[in-house]
Amino acid sequence: MADQKQQYVYSFGLEKSPKPPLDTNLLGGKGRNLAEMTSIGITVPPGIIISTDACRAYQKNHRSFPEGLKEQVFEYMHMLEDQMRIKFDDTDNPLLISVRSGAPVSMPGMMDTVLNVGLNDESVIGFAKTNNNEKLAYDSYRRLIMMYANVVRGLDKNYFEEIFDKIKEKEGVEHDFEVSTEGFKECCKLSKEAYKIHLDDDFPQDPWQQLITGIAAVFNSWDGNRAKVYRQVNGIADDMGTAVNIQTMVFGNKNNNSATGVAFTRDPATGDDHFYGEFLSNAQGEEVVAGIRTPHPINTYQKDITASTLNSLEEIMPEAYKQLYDIQNKLEHHYKDMQDMEFTIDDGRLFMLQTRTGKRTGFASIRIAIDMLEEGLIDEKTALMRIDANQITQLLAPIFDTSEKKAVYGKMVAKGLNAGPGAASGKAVFTTEKSVEWEKKGIDSILVRKETNPDDFPGMVAARGILTARGGSTSHAAVVARGMGKPCVAGCGALIINEKEGTLTANGITIKEGDPISIDGTTGEVFFCSLDTHPSEVVQAFIKKTIDPEKSKICKEYMTIMTLADKYRKIGIYTNADTPEDSYVARAFGAEGTGLCRTEHMFMAPDRLADVRKMFFSTSTETRKNAIAKLLPHQKKDFLGIFRAMDGLPVTIRLLDPPLHEFMPHSDEELSSLAKSMNMDIKELTEIRNSLHESNPMLGHRGCRLGIVYPNITRMQARAIIEAAIEVSQEGKTVMAEIMVPLVATKKEFEHQKAIITTTAEEVFKEKGSTIEYKIGTMIELPRAAIAAGRIAEEAEFFSFGTNDLTQTTFGISRDDCGKFVPTYIEGVPNPKNEKETMRIMENDPFQTIDQEGVGELMRIAIAKGRETRKDMKCGICGEHGGEPKSVIFCHNIGLNYVSCSPYRVPVARVAAAQAVLLSE
Amino acid sequence: MADQKQQYVYSFGLEKSPKPPLDTNLLGGKGRNLAEMTSIGITVPPGIIISTDACRAYQKNHRSFPEGLKEQVFEYMHMLEDQMRIKFDDTDNPLLISVRSGAPVSMPGMMDTVLNVGLNDESVIGFAKTNNNEKLAYDSYRRLIMMYANVVRGLDKNYFEEIFDKIKEKEGVEHDFEVSTEGFKECCKLSKEAYKIHLDDDFPQDPWQQLITGIAAVFNSWDGNRAKVYRQVNGIADDMGTAVNIQTMVFGNKNNNSATGVAFTRDPATGDDHFYGEFLSNAQGEEVVAGIRTPHPINTYQKDITASTLNSLEEIMPEAYKQLYDIQNKLEHHYKDMQDMEFTIDDGRLFMLQTRTGKRTGFASIRIAIDMLEEGLIDEKTALMRIDANQITQLLAPIFDTSEKKAVYGKMVAKGLNAGPGAASGKAVFTTEKSVEWEKKGIDSILVRKETNPDDFPGMVAARGILTARGGSTSHAAVVARGMGKPCVAGCGALIINEKEGTLTANGITIKEGDPISIDGTTGEVFFCSLDTHPSEVVQAFIKKTIDPEKSKICKEYMTIMTLADKYRKIGIYTNADTPEDSYVARAFGAEGTGLCRTEHMFMAPDRLADVRKMFFSTSTETRKNAIAKLLPHQKKDFLGIFRAMDGLPVTIRLLDPPLHEFMPHSDEELSSLAKSMNMDIKELTEIRNSLHESNPMLGHRGCRLGIVYPNITRMQARAIIEAAIEVSQEGKTVMAEIMVPLVATKKEFEHQKAIITTTAEEVFKEKGSTIEYKIGTMIELPRAAIAAGRIAEEAEFFSFGTNDLTQTTFGISRDDCGKFVPTYIEGVPNPKNEKETMRIMENDPFQTIDQEGVGELMRIAIAKGRETRKDMKCGICGEHGGEPKSVIFCHNIGLNYVSCSPYRVPVARVAAAQAVLLSE
Repeated sequence: MADQKQQYVYSFGLEKSPKPPLDTNLLGGKGRNLAEMTSIGITVPPGIIISTDACRAYQKNHRSFPEGLKEQVFEYMHMLEDQMRIKFDDTDNPLLISVRSGAPVSMPGMMDTVLNVGLNDESVIGFAKTNNNEKLAYDSYRRLIMMYANVVRGLDKNYFEEIFDKIKEKEGVEHDFEVSTEGFKECCKLSKEAYKIHLDDDFPQDPWQQLITGIAAVFNSWDGNRAKVYRQVNGIADDMGTAVNIQTMVFGNKNNNSATGVAFTRDPATGDDHFYGEFLSNAQGEEVVAGIRTPHPINTYQKDITASTLNSLEEIMPEAYKQLYDIQNKLEHHYKDMQDMEFTIDDGRLFMLQTRTGKRTGFASIRIAIDMLEEGLIDEKTALMRIDANQITQLLAPIFDTSEKKAVYGKMVAKGLNAGPGAASGKAVFTTEKSVEWEKKGIDSILVRKETNPDDFPGMVAARGILTARGGSTSHAAVVARGMGKPCVAGCGALIINEKEGTLTANGITIKEGDPISIDGTTGEVFFCSLDTHPSEVVQAFIKKTIDPEKSKICKEYMTIMTLADKYRKIGIYTNADTPEDSYVARAFGAEGTGLCRTEHMFMAPDRLADVRKMFFSTSTETRKNAIAKLLPHQKKDFLGIFRAMDGLPVTIRLLDPPLHEFMPHSDEELSSLAKSMNMDIKELTEIRNSLHESNPMLGHRGCRLGIVYPNITRMQARAIIEAAIEVSQEGKTVMAEIMVPLVATKKEFEHQKAIITTTAEEVFKEKGSTIEYKIGTMIELPRAAIAAGRIAEEAEFFSFGTNDLTQTTFGISRDDCGKFVPTYIEGVPNPKNEKETMRIMENDPFQTIDQEGVGELMRIAIAKGRETRKDMKCGICGEHGGEPKSVIFCHNIGLNYVSCSPYRVPVARVAAAQAVLLSE
Repeated sequence: MADQKQQYVYSFGLEKSPKPPLDTNLLGGKGRNLAEMTSIGITVPPGIIISTDACRAYQKNHRSFPEGLKEQVFEYMHMLEDQMRIKFDDTDNPLLISVRSGAPVSMPGMMDTVLNVGLNDESVIGFAKTNNNEKLAYDSYRRLIMMYANVVRGLDKNYFEEIFDKIKEKEGVEHDFEVSTEGFKECCKLSKEAYKIHLDDDFPQDPWQQLITGIAAVFNSWDGNRAKVYRQVNGIADDMGTAVNIQTMVFGNKNNNSATGVAFTRDPATGDDHFYGEFLSNAQGEEVVAGIRTPHPINTYQKDITASTLNSLEEIMPEAYKQLYDIQNKLEHHYKDMQDMEFTIDDGRLFMLQTRTGKRTGFASIRIAIDMLEEGLIDEKTALMRIDANQITQLLAPIFDTSEKKAVYGKMVAKGLNAGPGAASGKAVFTTEKSVEWEKKGIDSILVRKETNPDDFPGMVAARGILTARGGSTSHAAVVARGMGKPCVAGCGALIINEKEGTLTANGITIKEGDPISIDGTTGEVFFCSLDTHPSEVVQAFIKKTIDPEKSKICKEYMTIMTLADKYRKIGIYTNADTPEDSYVARAFGAEGTGLCRTEHMFMAPDRLADVRKMFFSTSTETRKNAIAKLLPHQKKDFLGIFRAMDGLPVTIRLLDPPLHEFMPHSDEELSSLAKSMNMDIKELTEIRNSLHESNPMLGHRGCRLGIVYPNITRMQARAIIEAAIEVSQEGKTVMAEIMVPLVATKKEFEHQKAIITTTAEEVFKEKGSTIEYKIGTMIELPRAAIAAGRIAEEAEFFSFGTNDLTQTTFGISRDDCGKFVPTYIEGVPNPKNEKETMRIMENDPFQTIDQEGVGELMRIAIAKGRETRKDMKCGICGEHGGEPKSVIFCHNIGLNYVSCSPYRVPVARVAAAQAVLLSE
C-alpha cells in the first residue's frame, strides 16, 4: 500500500489505521460486517482483512502471492501487535489469531478456517502461564495442529480425532472440556508425531510461516471442490474470490465463564419475531455449528418452545445475555434484516465474531418481510426484494396428512428439530454416494447422517429429505437444507446410526438401508414407514377449498405477498395448462391466462389413440375422414372445459407439435393389433412405421410441418377450437382463444396454417350463425423465426417464445443427449494451461436459465423486429424458463408482455416479475 | 387503357397504335422481341400483346379477367383488323391468329399455344376460297380443333392424332402434307365428333369465344404442373406471370413454296460461329420443334458437317435464305448475343415469328463469349456475365475413352445428333415413370424416347442421359438436355423403339428395358453396352497432364475465361479437400487454399479404425495412450502430403467433428471381434455402444464437445498438424496451417480448445527446436456462435461458416429427415383459400442455395460482430453452398474473404465470384 502500490490489506478495530471502505466485494461479507460492527460501536476482536483483490491476484499469479502482499500483511500485523500490546511471535505472551475465509457472498461451511494461529512448542507454555490456563493452552495447540494439518496440508482430520478419542476413552470422559491437562498435552505430542509421519515434515514452529501458509490455504480453498459445487448450485461467479479475515483470538473455551454460540434475530425456520439462538459453554465456535454436542437454547422463550431441559444463556449468564440481546436488536435495526450472528464470551466478556444476513426458509422469508414491513423497518419494495421467489414453492410443497400420521403413530419413532419445512418420504440411505446413485435411478431417498458436513452436499441435493442425529437448527444440515428448500429434521438425538452395518435404530426399532422412512420437516417428526404427501395449507385453502384462508396465518401472508407482487409487477403471468383441472389450479394461483395449452396430450389418451392412429396412418381416405370425425368431439370437449375454466382470460392453444412416430405403436404385438383394427396389412403398417423413423426427430417432421403436409389435422383442430369457443360464449362466458402455430421457420408456413384456420373459422361461423373473436399467432422457437420475425409479424398477431426448442436449436444441443457433456461443462474440465485448475465451460444449464447472450439476444431481435412491423405485438414465453426467477427478470427486461409457466410456478413468477420491476428501478 | 384505367394490352406492327415500352417484365420475352424486331424494320406478322400485369391480375382475381381487359382486347383486335383490312369474324376472308404464351423468362415447351384461332365451319370455306387452298384451310381447322381441345379444354391430343393417323393409313401416306383435301375434311369432321363425345360440348364456332378462352388457357398454363416443375428446377419466381401474344397467322404449310424453321446465329452445341438451323417445307412451326419429321439443314455448311442428304434451305429457296441470313446477322448485332429464331416462309414471303437469346451448352457459352469478345461485339464484363457458371462443370464432365470406344465398336449401333455434350452410361429405360423410380433406387438410366415432350421433363431430370429417335438439335429433348447439362443424342433415326414391348432395336440388335446402353452426346454415338466414363479434355490437360492445353481449343478457352474471372473477382476461392490428391486437383483448378480439410475421413480408413476405436472406447488408460500414439504418425502423414500439395497456400484443418457412435461397429459380429482385439468384455463394449446412442445425434456429443470431454483427441490432432507443418517447412516449403475448431457455441468452448492447441504447439516447438506460424479459428455453424461472434472473435483468428449445419439449426430441419416435407414445400401444397391453387412454402431448397433471409442474416450478423472485435477477421464459407453460384454471389455481397468448395466446383466458383463483382457494379 505504500507509495502507489495496490492496497491489499485493510483493518478493523485498529485505532491507528483508517477505517476501510464498507465494500463487500472488496472485503468479503464477513470482513465488511466486522468493520461495520466496529464502526457502530459493537465489540469485535480487532483484526485485519486481506481483500478479494489479493485472492484474484493470487489466482492469476499461478497461486503465488502478488507483489507487495506479504509486506502489507506484516505491516498490518505489526499495527495489530501495537494495539494489543503483545507480539505475534512472542513466546511468553503470544498474540493468537484466527485465519478465516470471507467471500462477498455467504458460502456457509464451504471455506476452511484455522484457529489459534501463532502457537508453537514454546509459546504454548507462555500462553498457559499468562492466561493461567494450561488446559486452554494445550487444547488450543492441539486444535491448531489438527486444523493446520487438515486445511493447509490436506491431511485427513480423522488421524487427529482418533488420537483425541483414544485419550478421552483412556480418561473415561465424554466431552472435550472434561479432558485433563495431561490429556491435552499428550494429544499435542501425538498429533505432532502423526503430522510428522503422514506429512514427512515437522509441524511448523514459526508463527509467521503458519500465518502465510494459512492465508494461502484460504485462497486455495476458493477453488476446492466443495466451494465449486456450492457456487455451481447457487449460481455464484467463479471469479469473485474470497477475502481472508485475520482476527485476534478470543476463547469461548477458556473456562466455564466462557461460551460460544450462534444466534438469529428472528426464527429462521418460521420467521417468528423472537430472538433465537444456541450456544455451548466452554467451547470453541465450530463445535456449535458442527453439531457434535447438542447446543443449549439461548433464552427461556426458546427453551419453552423446544421443551428443552438444558440451561439457557439467559439463565446462566444473564449479564452477557442482556448485552447480546441489545446487540442483536441494534444489528437488526442497523441492517434492517434478520441477522445470523456468531459470538464468543471470553471469561465473561462478550465479543461479536460475525454478523450476516440470515438464511431462512420460504415461510420465514415471507413472515419476516411482512412483519418488518408492518413494523415500519422496511418499505414494500424492500419486503418484496427480501423474498427468494423460488422459495415460494415451499408454501405449496406437500405436507403429511394429520390423520394419516395419526394412523401410523406407532411408527413415529422420534422427534427432532424442525430444521427444514416440508414433508418427504423415501428409502433410508446412509451415504452421499448411495443417495446420488439412487437419484439417478429415480429412487426417492432420505439421507440419514449422524451429522452432515460439506462433503455430503451432493447427497443432500440428491435426497428428498435429510435427517441428522446431531446438531441444532443452525447446523450444517439445517442451514443447507433450508437453502435448498429441502425438508430436514436435525439433531434427532434418539437415533442410533450404525453406518458400517447400514442400520438405523430408534425407539427400539431397527431399519436398514432401503427401508421406508418419512420425515416432517415442519414438525420434526420421524416415521419408520412410508407416508403419502398431501397438499400444503395454501393449496388446501386456494385449490381444495378445504380450509378458510383467513384462518391460516400462512395463507394470509401468502395473500399479502401476492397482492404486493401484483401491485408492482408489470408483465402478465400466464400458465402452461393442458386440462380444465390444471387451468383451474393455475387460475387459483393467480394465472391471468393460458400461455400454452398443448393439444398432443389430448391425442395421447388411450381412448383416442386408436382414432389418432387411423387419422395419420390409414391409407384409406374414408377411414381417415371417419377417424377425424370421431376425434373432433373429443378435442372440442377438452376445449370446452378449458374455456370455461379460463372465462374472461386468454387461452393460447398450440396446434399439434410432436413427430408422428410418437403416435405409432413400437412393439410388434401392438402393431399387429392396430393393423387388424385398421383393416390394414401388417406389412404395410410396418412400412409406414419404418418410414416414420427419423435420424433427428427434434429436427424432423413435426410442428407446423405436420399441419402443412396433413392439412386435415389443422382443420380439425381449428374446428374444435372455434366450435367450443362459440358454445362457451353462448353460455354467457367470455372466450379469448389465441391459436398458436408451432415450429414456424418462415412466413409462408405461418400463412398456410393461418389460411386453414381462418377458412375453417368462417365455415363454422356460417354453420353456427354466430361468430367469436380470436387471434392467430406463432411460436418463436427456431432461430430463423427470430431472425425473420419482422416478416412473420406481417401475418402473426402474437409471438410466444418456445425457449426449450429455441435453446436446442440456438446451441445445436439436444436436451435428450446433452447429458454426456453439459454437466461436464458446468462442473468444469481441467484447464489445458494448468491441469490443476478447473475451467468451467458453462455457468448455468441453458435449459434451466435462459442463455442471455445467445438465446436471449435472439429473443431481443425477434421482439424488436416483430414490433417494428406490428407496434403492439403481444410477446410471451411458454418454455420452461417462464417459471424460473432469473429468466422471468430477463423476460421483463426485454419487454415481454407475459411469462407462462406450470400452475405451481405461477406464484413464483408473480414475485419474480415484481422483483424485476424493482431491480430495474 | 381508356381514361385512367390500367393498360393491359399493347401492340406491335400496328401503324395506328403507339410503340410499346420494350419492357420484358411487362411484355414477356417473346412479345418484347416481336416489338423490338418490328422497331428495327424486320418483317413480323403484326399482333397484340396482353401484358404480364393482366396475368397477375387474372390470378389475383381468382382466375377471371380483371376489369377492362376484355374491352382492351376487343379494341386492339379491331385495330389489327383495320390494318390487315380483314375481319376476325368474317366468314369469307377471316383474319386468323395465333395465341401464344410469352413469359419474361424463356420457358421452352412449357407453355401452351393455340394456332389458327378464328376458323369455324363457315369461315374455313371462306378461307379456302380466298387462299385458293382448301387443303391448307382444312389442315388448319383440324389443327385448331385439336389444339383448342387439348390446351383450352384439357383433352388428350391422342384422340385427334389417332383420327389423323387412321386417315393417313387409309390414304397410304406417311407425312401430313401428303394427305388429301378430303382427308383433312374428314379429319375435321371426325375431330369435331370426338370433341363432342369427350367434352359433351360442341367445338365453339364463335371466333371471339375461341380467342377469350384461349387467352385464359395461356394464363392458366402458367400454373400448370409442367410450368411449375420447370420454374422450380430453374429457380424462376412464381409470381412473374406470362404475357399472351396474339399474332396474325402466316402459313409455312401453305404450299411447297412455304416453309417453317428455327435457326441459331451460332452453333448452340459447340458455339462455333456458323449460322445454324433447321427447317421443314410445307409445315407448321411445331412440327420442327416436336421432331416428328427429321428437319432439313438450313445451309450447305450444316449439310456438310452433318453429312446430311437432305436439301438445305439455301439450296431450295436461295432468296428467302439470303433474307434470313441477313436478318440473323442484323439480330445478333442488335442484341449482341447468339439468337434463337423462329421463321416462316408463307408462299415465298419470309416472316420472323420470334427471336430470343439462344440456350447453349457450357462449351458453346464459353466459345461464343470469347469469340464475341474478340470480335469486339461485347466487352470483357459482358463476356463473363454471358456464362452460366454452373455450366463450367460441363468442361470437366466425363467423356468416353476413344480406345475403349473402339474396342466396343461392334456395339456402336447408331449415330444421332450430338445434341447435349457429355458421355453417359446406364440402363435403358423407356418411360419417365421408370426413370424417376430408378433414380430413387440409385440406378443410372438412359431415357430412350421416340421424341420427348414436356411431360417427359421429370424423367429427363432423373436419367443420366437422353436418347431420342426423332427431332433435331433444336427439338425439345435437345434444348432441355442442354439446359440441364445432360448428355443427349437426338434424332437418331436408326432406332426402332417399341414402347409397349419395352425394346429398342438398332442395327439388327434388340435390347430390352434394363439392358446397358451408352451415349456420347459430344459425338452422337450410341452403344448397346456399358462404357466407363473418363476425364474430360480440361481434366486431362490440367490434372492428368496427358495432353497439352495449348493444343486444345477447349482448354485454351477455359484458360481465357478463368483468367478473365480472376481479373475481376475479389473473393478468394478455396477448396474442401481431405487428401493430398484432392488438394492437388483443386489447386490445378485454381484453388487458392484449403477452406476445409476434414480429419474424420482419416480416422475412418480401415487400417486406422481399430486404433481409433481403442482410443475412444477402451477403458484402460494404457490401451488408450497406445492407440493415440499409434494414430499420431498416420494423422501426421496425411498432413504432410496435404501441406506439400498446398505449398504457399493456407490449409484450414478442422478438428474431429462427428459423433463417436459413427466409429462404433454396428453388427454384433464386428463388435465381438473388436472386443477380442481390445481385450475387453463384449458386454462392456456393448454397453459403451448403447450408451453412445443419441436421440438426435446432429445435436449431440460431437464437434468441439468431443475435444473438450476427450482433450487427448485435440492434443493428438494438434501435435500431428504442428509436427507435419514443421517438417514440411524444413523441406523449404511454406506451410500456412489454420486450425479450425468445429461446432463452437460459446467463447469458453473455443478458449478451451485453443489452450490445448497452443500448449501442444509450444511443446512441439520446444522438442523440435523450431517454430512455425499458424492460426486458430472456428466454424460458425450454430446460431449461437453467429450471435456471440463478437465475443468469440476475442479469441478466434478466423471464422468459417459451416452453412450445412447452420442451415439445419437455423431452420430446425435435419437434412436427413427433411425428405418428408421439404420437397412438398418446394413443390407446393393446395392453397387452403383455394384448393385449386398451389401454394409454395419454399422457393429453394435451403441446403442447396443459402437462405438469405434467415441463415444469410445470421452470417451478416456474425461478420459484423466478428469484425467489430477483430477488424481484419478473415471470414469464409466451407458448407456445400460454397460452390453454388447464387450462394457465391451472396457470399461476395456480405463481404466474405473466400468461398470454399469441392475441387470440381472451383472453376464454377471462380466465374460466379467474378459475376458477383459485375452484378454489384
